[in-house]
Parts: sequence; structure tokens; C-alpha cells
Amino acid sequence: MNSLQLFNNIIQKKSFLCVGLDTEIDKIPEHLKKTKDPVFEFNKRIIDATHSYAVAYKPNVAFYESSGAHGWHSLEATVNYIRKNYPNIFIIADAKRGDIGNTSKMYAKAFLENMPFDAVTVAPYMGVDSVTPFLSYEDKWVVLLALTSNKGADDFQYHNEDGIKLFERVLSVSQKWGSVNNIMYVVGATRAEMLKDIRKIVPDHFLLVPGVGAQGGSLEEVARYGLNSKCGLLVNSSRGIIFADSTENFDKVAEEKALEMKLEMEKYLSDRNLI
Amino acid sequence: MNSLQLFNNIIQKKSFLCVGLDTEIDKIPEHLKKTKDPVFEFNKRIIDATHSYAVAYKPNVAFYESSGAHGWHSLEATVNYIRKNYPNIFIIADAKRGDIGNTSKMYAKAFLENMPFDAVTVAPYMGVDSVTPFLSYEDKWVVLLALTSNKGADDFQYHNEDGIKLFERVLSVSQKWGSVNNIMYVVGATRAEMLKDIRKIVPDHFLLVPGVGAQGGSLEEVARYGLNSKCGLLVNSSRGIIFADSTENFDKVAEEKALEMKLEMEKYLSDRNLI
Repeated sequence: MNSLQLFNNIIQKKSFLCVGLDTEIDKIPEHLKKTKDPVFEFNKRIIDATHSYAVAYKPNVAFYESSGAHGWHSLEATVNYIRKNYPNIFIIADAKRGDIGNTSKMYAKAFLENMPFDAVTVAPYMGVDSVTPFLSYEDKWVVLLALTSNKGADDFQYHNEDGIKLFERVLSVSQKWGSVNNIMYVVGATRAEMLKDIRKIVPDHFLLVPGVGAQGGSLEEVARYGLNSKCGLLVNSSRGIIFADSTENFDKVAEEKALEMKLEMEKYLSDRNLI
Repeated sequence: MNSLQLFNNIIQKKSFLCVGLDTEIDKIPEHLKKTKDPVFEFNKRIIDATHSYAVAYKPNVAFYESSGAHGWHSLEATVNYIRKNYPNIFIIADAKRGDIGNTSKMYAKAFLENMPFDAVTVAPYMGVDSVTPFLSYEDKWVVLLALTSNKGADDFQYHNEDGIKLFERVLSVSQKWGSVNNIMYVVGATRAEMLKDIRKIVPDHFLLVPGVGAQGGSLEEVARYGLNSKCGLLVNSSRGIIFADSTENFDKVAEEKALEMKLEMEKYLSDRNLI
């Protein structure tokens, strides 16, 4: 998928919502725990309930990996299910990978070749050869960490050389490794006020924004500072949607929560005359 | 395992060799490809052949992950095999993980709880809460990326604020998150001359040094600048040992290569009066 196709999907759905599949086995409703693969069963119902309002899904790989090989089966089943039933939806492996060239190549193979993900989140610390192997697949994407939503973002991401913070250097240097059609950036919603300056460095790139909801970020502020003429935003919500309810009714409640976010996003898209 | 136990193992074996299990399926000798789990069979023979000369093994998780759930079975079988047969050997999951707190907790569970690894390599970009969940396990370790051995290390790791480079800030800030008994640092052998300055910041920590051999680093220089009074080094070699030969004789050749490195290490340990 290229950025124009992603934008078209956003226009059609009037939504730039990404649903995070951080599927923690302990939080799955009791009645699903008796099934053969509770994690996949849970995801399937969440996806079926929310797909009209979401343009992207983002399985958080750690939550699958913590169940070993079995967890990988659930992850594979989930991404295959989305690809088969909802082929236009963008799927991000939230894996935060990144290693020397020959190793990143293996990670790229795992997510972009063996599984039908559209994108992988990548950590920038090791630089160019840790990122470019993910960019060698046509119509596939790297989502590079820039400014994250957590407390620890303060430790290194603001390290300042001659007025240029590390995350700003990541944005400016890495732009040259790809294009607006295969690189997007993670910018946390808890730092929404920074989006104004970030848009000066990457006016046209898509930004993946976590941290709305449970982590305290404001969707309104993210939209105000982050939207560009091709939307340019995917805003992620995980726990606020998928674990909003823990009864047999969980998928219905997830649908309502996704619809709420979609309606708010529709308003912001409309305010900007994008729809 | 704490740092004193690791040092004692080094003294006993007269070696600070870590063998990297970057087991690429295409490079496995033909006769093993017919077995049920060629990757595990290969690793088992490499481990049986080299365990007298190695104090640590480091499976590179990407190479397993690239085979999906099946690869995870091979990884689990490998680490369980080492733990059962050679209980004193230090085992590092080279995974380069790191995410917000609740997610890093899941990665820590995957490697330090569900599998009997002693340590995980972690990327520092996301700061304190991305690292500390790995430090909550007694006698388990974080191996934090500081200065890596690849070309891309130049892109961000030297970003300089008031004379302090990013990798130096990583070393000084992260020290406070743990101790010499649960944090070690990755410093690439291709940057051996930097070890002199790095030892001023972390005089007592263990350093994991990749990049000797295939990537061009010199063991002699690493030992000269990196050894401390408790050794303080684990030097990794992967391809130079495990893929030194591609015939049925591969494990015998791997043993010879590991012995060569061990003998060179023994000399440096002896020169410093550590043995």
C-alpha cells in the first residue's frame, strides 16, 4: 500500500484510527479462555466489530512473543485473518526491531515476507543499515521511532547538538533513506505540542501516534498540530478500545469505543475540508 | 548469575569467548537439513564442540524469528539444551528489544521467565521505563546497546551535547538503573580505540563486544583497551566460528576456531595477571 491508497482509505472511512492489538491473555473475557486459541478468538471478534471504523491494526508483538511459539501462531493467524477478510486495512507489526544489516534483513523477512504485514516499527539507534533492509520491499513501510509517548523519552530523545534534538536528527537524517511512501514516524500523543515543530521537518510523512486515551494524550491536540493535506496521521488506541469491557459483550463495547473515536476524527477531517 | 560468578567461569576456562548462534538455515550443512529440526541439530553440535572454550552463547533471535513459530521452537530447544547440559554457561538473547514499560515487561517475560536466558540485549532509545522491566529478575541481565559495530552507528550514537556523545550519555545515565551485577553494555570491536574512553565511564561493568572477525575488529586491541581487573569482557564471534566450514566436519572446525580464540584470550588474561 502506498500513501495515496492509505489516504483514500482514510477518506472513505472518515477515520484515521489504528486499533492496537495488545492482547494480554489475562485480560481476555473468561468465556473465550476455553477456546483453542483464545488470543486469536479475541482478536477476530475485535476486528470483526471494529473494521468499519479502523484503517489500521497494530498487533503489539511483545504480547504474542510472551507466549512463545504458541503466541507466534496467534500472531500469524491474526494478521492472516485481517489480510484475507479486510484486504484494504493497513497492518503494522509493532515490534521495535533494529540490528546490523544482515540481522535486520532477517527481521524484515519475518514480518514483511513470511507474514503479510504492511509495516514494522523500527528503533533508530543503530542507524542506516539497521533500517534500510526493511525498505527493500515494495509497498511496505518502516515506522521509525522518533519521539515516543513514555516517560523514558526524556532520557535520550532530547539530547541536543547545536539546537538539534536527537529525535529531530532522526527525522531529518532518516528521511533520505526512503520516501513518504515507505517511512512513517512514531510521535507520542503525550507530546502533542511538539507536533508543530515536527511538521516543519516532516510536513508530508504519515505519523503514527500512540498514547491517546490510557496514556493521557488528547486526540484534539494531535489533530490540530498533526493533520496535513493528505491527513498524514494514524492515531492508535489499544486498551481504551479492546479492553473497554471484560464481559461477553466486549466486542460490542469495543465497536462503540471505536465509533466514538471515528466520529471525533470525522469532525477534525471535516474541519480541515479533507472530507 | 552475578558478575563474580561470570568472572570465576572466565578464570576457570581461561576464556571470555561468547559464541554467537546466528544460525542461518541456508548455511547449515546439507546432511543436517534432513533432520526434524536442522537449526537445533546444528546448534547442538556447535555447542557440544565449543562449550569447553566458551563462557557464553548468544542466539541471535532474528535468525529464529525469520522461521516463525517453528523458529521459536528451535530457539527454545537450543537454550533449554544449553541450560540443561552446561548449566554454568551464560546465555544471551540477542533480541535488541525495548518498548514502553508494560510492553518491555512482556519481552522480559518471554526471554527471562519463559525461557532460561541470563540476559537480553536491549536498545536504549526509549529510556528508563523501556529498560527497567528487564532488571526486575534476580541474577538476570540487560545488555544495553551503547556503541555498536556497524556503519549506521555514526548516524546517531555520536550526537554530541556539550561534549557528551549520545552513547556516552547512555552509559552514564543507565548505570543508575541497575548495577555491575545486572547491566552490561554492547561496544563494537570495530570501535576498539573508543574503549579507552568508555572504560573511564564504566570502569567496572562487563562489556559485550561483537564485531571481531567477520566485521573486522581486532581481539588484541579490544583486550588492550577493554580488560579490567575482573576481566569485564565478553567477546563474541559468530560466523567466524559456526560457519567456518560447511561440510560434515563443521563442528570439528568450529571447535578449532573456538580453541584458537580461547588461546589468544588466555594470553591476554595471563599478560594482565588475571590467571
